[in-house]
Amino acid sequence: MSPDTAPTDAEAACFEAGIKFGSLYHQFAGTPVSPDSAPSLETAMEESIENQPHCTEVSVDVRIDELEAALAESTADYTELTGRFLDVEIVVDYEGREVVTRMEMEDSYPLMRLESVRDRA
Amino acid sequence: MSPDTAPTDAEAACFEAGIKFGSLYHQFAGTPVSPDSAPSLETAMEESIENQPHCTEVSVDVRIDELEAALAESTADYTELTGRFLDVEIVVDYEGREVVTRMEMEDSYPLMRLESVRDRA
Amino acid sequence: MSPDTAPTDAEAACFEAGIKFGSLYHQFAGTPVSPDSAPSLETAMEESIENQPHCTEVSVDVRIDELEAALAESTADYTELTGRFLDVEIVVDYEGREVVTRMEMEDSYPLMRLESVRDRA
Amino acid sequence: MSPDTAPTDAEAACFEAGIKFGSLYHQFAGTPVSPDSAPSLETAMEESIENQPHCTEVSVDVRIDELEAALAESTADYTELTGRFLDVEIVVDYEGREVVTRMEMEDSYPLMRLESVRDRA
Repeated sequence: MSPDTAPTDAEAACFEAGIKFGSLYHQFAGTPVSPDSAPSLETAMEESIENQPHCTEVSVDVRIDELEAALAESTADYTELTGRFLDVEIVVDYEGREVVTRMEMEDSYPLMRLESVRDRA
Repeated sequence: MSPDTAPTDAEAACFEAGIKFGSLYHQFAGTPVSPDSAPSLETAMEESIENQPHCTEVSVDVRIDELEAALAESTADYTELTGRFLDVEIVVDYEGREVVTRMEMEDSYPLMRLESVRDRA
Repeated sequence: MSPDTAPTDAEAACFEAGIKFGSLYHQFAGTPVSPDSAPSLETAMEESIENQPHCTEVSVDVRIDELEAALAESTADYTELTGRFLDVEIVVDYEGREVVTRMEMEDSYPLMRLESVRDRA
Repeated sequence: MSPDTAPTDAEAACFEAGIKFGSLYHQFAGTPVSPDSAPSLETAMEESIENQPHCTEVSVDVRIDELEAALAESTADYTELTGRFLDVEIVVDYEGREVVTRMEMEDSYPLMRLESVRDRA
């Protein structure tokens, strides 16, 4: 690998953060969820992904208002977890570089965004 | 559908129980898990699948001894959830027929088994 | 286990069929899909689930019209696989009992149904 | 966001590449797979993830020798997809920055690695 294509520590930190996000979303998408079961799912999502290397903090909020609105339009009392019901923040620390990433609804579309990359010190 | 191929209520109850088991296993297989995060994952697995129709009770135990044995053989402090780390019981009640099903290790192989089918009354 | 709660072969066949359905749905729910990539996903879904014990045939159709309608309402050219885009048939043969099961849209809701249970002979 | 924490295009490209990898791994981990069904699964994994934004190429090889070795030790003729059976390369192009990433076995452990980050021009 030539020197000018070798990744920087900050780039590697962003790669690691992306892995956590793709893992969280695709591992749990489709999980049956209701307003009552949402808290236990949030906790499990946070604690499982926090196991992954360099992941210092995961914060998951199931949007109960959005979930209740979806359930009001159907006869079921649960639905399957998708991005429209989630606000997520994931913080990664890799070799002293701290990366903050978020997934939030934007114009009815769940968007994963790289918020900041900085030296932790 | 001819009368002699129409399913009985007990057969439909067993079908429903199978759906819960396949859902639980394939939704959560691959989830990062450690001895510390196992309790929250057990609770989330139980509460999410209990949302599904006709599912009265889900009981999940992550086999901590098996998990610790697997981790002792690697440099990681977490691994990914598979059947060898799970004991699961799922009870379904469909039109008065109660079905009890279990997944347990048998000769190092995770086996899903239909334990009993009976009238609930 | 008392004799009057031991499952019949037909009940065990229905349990097996349910496992295949829950597996198929929750393994693949969330997979990124477009009209162009749908055929390869159908084939992979069929061939992977046909590996499971007693599963003789899996037939998956991604509803391209439904998919294109969903994409027309967004700026993206792909979405994530959910039940509303799927017609599925799964046939299980267990100890000579053949079970046919289907998942189809019914009133905008994807429904898994046990179609028939009969002696294969 | 202050200017010195705003991500560079290269960092954003690495974040995007990580999302693809986490998505691919956790969407398909647990899929039933045999030597016969492996080719269709490889194609579906490639085509589905290539749908994701900025993803120009996905290349998946199921390690048939590793799969056959695992099956030789059991009575089953299929198993569930995990990292030990996969070699994967994912190429992302974001705002003119091309990122090449790989997942390969290293000392019996599947490792996701950022190979190179360069200007595409």
